[in-house]
Amino acid sequence: MTKDQNIMEATDSQMIDDFLSNNKGKKVVVVQGLGFVGAVMSLVCANGITEEYAVIGVDLPTKEAIKKINALNRGEFPIASSDPKVMEYFEKSRSKSNFLATHSTYAYQKADVIIIDINLDVDKVSSDEKVLQSYDVSLSGFKKAIQSIGRACQPDVLILVETTVPPGTCQFVVKPIIEEEFGQRGISFNGYIGHSYERVMPGPKYIDSIQNFYRVYSGIDEPSANKVEAFLKTIIRTDEYPLTRLSNTHATEMAKVLENSFRAMNIAFIQEWSNYAEEAGVNIYEVIQAIRMRPTHKNIMMPGLGVGGYCLTKDPLLASWSKKTMFKSEKGLSNSEQAVQINDRMPLRAFDIIENNVKGGLSSKRVLLLGISYLNDVGDTRYTPVELLCRKLLAAGAQLTLHDPFLEYWDELELAIETDLEEIFQKKYDVVLISTAHSSYRNNIGLINFFETKKDLFVLDCWGILSPEEIIRIAQKNTVKVIGRGDI
Amino acid sequence: MTKDQNIMEATDSQMIDDFLSNNKGKKVVVVQGLGFVGAVMSLVCANGITEEYAVIGVDLPTKEAIKKINALNRGEFPIASSDPKVMEYFEKSRSKSNFLATHSTYAYQKADVIIIDINLDVDKVSSDEKVLQSYDVSLSGFKKAIQSIGRACQPDVLILVETTVPPGTCQFVVKPIIEEEFGQRGISFNGYIGHSYERVMPGPKYIDSIQNFYRVYSGIDEPSANKVEAFLKTIIRTDEYPLTRLSNTHATEMAKVLENSFRAMNIAFIQEWSNYAEEAGVNIYEVIQAIRMRPTHKNIMMPGLGVGGYCLTKDPLLASWSKKTMFKSEKGLSNSEQAVQINDRMPLRAFDIIENNVKGGLSSKRVLLLGISYLNDVGDTRYTPVELLCRKLLAAGAQLTLHDPFLEYWDELELAIETDLEEIFQKKYDVVLISTAHSSYRNNIGLINFFETKKDLFVLDCWGILSPEEIIRIAQKNTVKVIGRGDI
Repeated sequence: MTKDQNIMEATDSQMIDDFLSNNKGKKVVVVQGLGFVGAVMSLVCANGITEEYAVIGVDLPTKEAIKKINALNRGEFPIASSDPKVMEYFEKSRSKSNFLATHSTYAYQKADVIIIDINLDVDKVSSDEKVLQSYDVSLSGFKKAIQSIGRACQPDVLILVETTVPPGTCQFVVKPIIEEEFGQRGISFNGYIGHSYERVMPGPKYIDSIQNFYRVYSGIDEPSANKVEAFLKTIIRTDEYPLTRLSNTHATEMAKVLENSFRAMNIAFIQEWSNYAEEAGVNIYEVIQAIRMRPTHKNIMMPGLGVGGYCLTKDPLLASWSKKTMFKSEKGLSNSEQAVQINDRMPLRAFDIIENNVKGGLSSKRVLLLGISYLNDVGDTRYTPVELLCRKLLAAGAQLTLHDPFLEYWDELELAIETDLEEIFQKKYDVVLISTAHSSYRNNIGLINFFETKKDLFVLDCWGILSPEEIIRIAQKNTVKVIGRGDI
Repeated sequence: MTKDQNIMEATDSQMIDDFLSNNKGKKVVVVQGLGFVGAVMSLVCANGITEEYAVIGVDLPTKEAIKKINALNRGEFPIASSDPKVMEYFEKSRSKSNFLATHSTYAYQKADVIIIDINLDVDKVSSDEKVLQSYDVSLSGFKKAIQSIGRACQPDVLILVETTVPPGTCQFVVKPIIEEEFGQRGISFNGYIGHSYERVMPGPKYIDSIQNFYRVYSGIDEPSANKVEAFLKTIIRTDEYPLTRLSNTHATEMAKVLENSFRAMNIAFIQEWSNYAEEAGVNIYEVIQAIRMRPTHKNIMMPGLGVGGYCLTKDPLLASWSKKTMFKSEKGLSNSEQAVQINDRMPLRAFDIIENNVKGGLSSKRVLLLGISYLNDVGDTRYTPVELLCRKLLAAGAQLTLHDPFLEYWDELELAIETDLEEIFQKKYDVVLISTAHSSYRNNIGLINFFETKKDLFVLDCWGILSPEEIIRIAQKNTVKVIGRGDI
């Protein structure tokens, strides 16, 4: 540790002590990780149902994280969201002064509860065409984070893992590390370790996806499970959304990756059928709508551009890796791995359709993309399928104009994004793509008027946003296609 | 036609004429095919919601079908069912004398509506280990059936296809054949051709699965679709279960095979995860129950012995065949084909578990199978997964005792089936399998008492029928396993 770091650490410890003396009588929750989950989880703990905690959010002393920490302490919430509750909760915690952000591990010493909300990534190696060639799961960052807790925490703390982990992690990784660190400290750990995975959906129900939603939980032993239950009841509306306790942490860890693999696989499945519908001249949207009338088939997925976000793109691989590595199985989960492989390549279908429909190649063609986010009504570019599509378009020499109502800048591609639709309409284009299913593109009269005043545009709706009437209007002067629909 | 056939035909024509003169004023519905669908569809038409038709069921003059025809005309319904409505509807049609069975194609001449409920099979070639090596779809039987209609029907008839067909069939097969036959007759066809697939579930809601359930329909043109709609409204409770009209017959044909492929694929998916749960010592039933709390994940499937019945075992192949053959695609539906391949082999997992848990090999071991039917609470052995399991057990030299409350005889294996559970308990066994999820095996005190008085039994519950408490009781003296559950 350098002298500067020592000073910073001392200042931070003082800040934490001051914060806690202002919050006397409140139990202390430390949230490790201030990303899409941790930042909002902190707000939920600061504004619990039956208890309001003194919440300290801890992140690493990296450039990005320090920016975020300082922003939070200045009163600026670092994640833009269409959910008004996010700012409301943040403002409430500001006025109560019960939320502090820091990079100091001193916080762990003061915690009654430590919630782990850090990322655990899968490193995928893929070709340019997104053929998954290999992947690996590295636990080193995760292990370090647990060690930092074990070195500092109280012996009777509740450690609650919310991170999506390979099944087996709490028993085979977290517990031994904590016990090892306590061994080094010469004291024994008599606290609690539990697992309760988050189902956070950034978007209009961001807060509710934690506070008003079903939860599954477990502990490494019964006292741990009891502790987790008691804690969750203080922050989640469990009267309306009852908790489900599972027998052990393997089970809850498996539940999370299974539910996401189920989604990923169902998306991969419909991908193949949407190609079939195109070939057969069938409107697969009406077909799926008809099938969804059956209660047993309500969840059949719609086709689209592809799959993005932090969960569906990696969780099936986490599971397969765990099966082979943690549980020494000869075989991984081939169906689930295959789903990721198919989904990773989905955007190539859109690119093929564009290439086949734009005369004279894509070089110098002006392409407008409506939507960058991987999910509708959120500004979230993590693993967005729009990225592969854009990279392919750029490689083919196209000139891109990007629009997303929720994003000003695309970090991954280092490109500016327009947020005003009216301004966009002033320019000329050869191709327009509806690349994210944002609600504001649906039934948008301005958008349809824009299409109607143009001719020779190629319009590709990747998400079935356009209504049959809108398609007829646009098709009078332009070419329209919808992914998966063969009837136009 | 031989002289005998001529006489028979003449007698049958007379019978039809007599039947119709007894049913004057009623519109005539002819149902082609008196199998699991056609027999019950006939009852529904004879006891419609807003109209009661004179219904003639037609089947081929084969030995099996003639037995069925004669039984129906004698007042014996040929399909055993746990749905009391079946016998109620049959008795009502008997007392109204508005249902006749015949093998005479003369019936087609008299029809206002002809409903096609015949089978269209996939010929699978598989190894002994059920590795699917190839498959083919032969339309020849189906084409002959359509020809027999085209040769005899009125020019203004409504032909309604309910058979699950490869997408494209109504347009590319049915319509040309009918027009060709009318051409040969020197008159033009000005009738209607529609498609509305059935979702019949033999079992306790057999009748309701037609009369009180959602329907999808289409026509080869708008007048045909209108005719189908008007007809369906007379027999189905469409006020509670609104109809869905799709744009064309390709779409409805695709909807049927898509919804069944969706199911087949979701079963194949969970199969792999249930192996994983076994390896990880996880109770996958509690995991799935927890996941099902999410409205978006309600339909995630439970593990089991395997997949049977007439639909899920072949429909994904029908679809893939159509994609390649009817729509000239280079690729079939590989995910959906793969689902069938995985599901066909599912029962081998149960066999492996038995083999690994019974000491000294299976030769001469006494094995009791509880359940033969592919589906709970029905007596239906069509493609039951129990068949592969039994063939493997027999090949290994095991002595089988079979029980099913709904079946007395197993046609496919030519084996007697016991229906009385108490009698079964008198014999001795080495292995007991719960091979069908019949409700009567659930919470069955007699069954648990039986297990408790035995020792050294190997009990395999293929469907998660046994409760945790029951498992504990059985496990005191015996070995218990549940497919997919690794925690016992």
